[in-house]
Amino acid sequence: MNALAQLGMVSEIPSENQTVAAPDEDGVQKDYFVQKDGVKFAGTHLLIDLWGARNLADPAHIDTALRDAALAAGATILHSHFHHFSPNGGVSGVVVLAESHISIHTWPERDFAAVDIFMCGACNPYESLPVLKAAFRPDSVRLGEQRRGLMV
Amino acid sequence: MNALAQLGMVSEIPSENQTVAAPDEDGVQKDYFVQKDGVKFAGTHLLIDLWGARNLADPAHIDTALRDAALAAGATILHSHFHHFSPNGGVSGVVVLAESHISIHTWPERDFAAVDIFMCGACNPYESLPVLKAAFRPDSVRLGEQRRGLMV
Repeated sequence: MNALAQLGMVSEIPSENQTVAAPDEDGVQKDYFVQKDGVKFAGTHLLIDLWGARNLADPAHIDTALRDAALAAGATILHSHFHHFSPNGGVSGVVVLAESHISIHTWPERDFAAVDIFMCGACNPYESLPVLKAAFRPDSVRLGEQRRGLMV
Repeated sequence: MNALAQLGMVSEIPSENQTVAAPDEDGVQKDYFVQKDGVKFAGTHLLIDLWGARNLADPAHIDTALRDAALAAGATILHSHFHHFSPNGGVSGVVVLAESHISIHTWPERDFAAVDIFMCGACNPYESLPVLKAAFRPDSVRLGEQRRGLMV
């Protein structure tokens, strides 16, 4: 177990939680793609660049922020891992979700962080944005969206 | 420790490996952004949709593929975690790198996988593509690139 795990920042999921979806009782194969706007896709992937941001060298703060962001979107957290770099103090972190993932990589020396949120199912990744803005108080945000696995 | 960790698919990094960059001896702050084509940016983020792909329900195969893809790009692996879903057999996995991350989410029932590779520093994420193609043998690939933290 690593140092961050000892601080409670890396979750260990018991094996009985590895299975998240129950078999369909009627035996019909479920469609895990999203249907919206007349198209089908696997999920929504947001790429979020935060400029002029705060709290970028604090793994505990970042861990809490990403977990809160996941929960705000309606996601289920399966696993998280954070890594604190030296000498710049940057943090890399990922939260694995039942509905895909959230990641963050920070460059405190530039007050910059790159976040991505990929969520499938009924989750709404846009609900994570107010949590991220409150946690990192960026002066500006550059946001991009891509629908992954888009089918006409 | 979870079931996948017992199978050797989840790495535990000892705490002494949490620090990956040595302090600069001359005390000068290092610039971790990339300079290329007359611009500066944090790193290159590839979004890769694989269609008609194989081996999407096999966590051990996917773990090996992502690790090989990371090494092919010249990256350093810090941590990985894979989750196997039921009943569709899909796999979610992330590999945390010293240079950011690789993630994968698979939908075996559609022969579809969504991969993202974010790499900063001297790594070239395009070098990961032949490894992914060999591992998953997709009929088609949809590739998008975004330079994160782009500054004019």
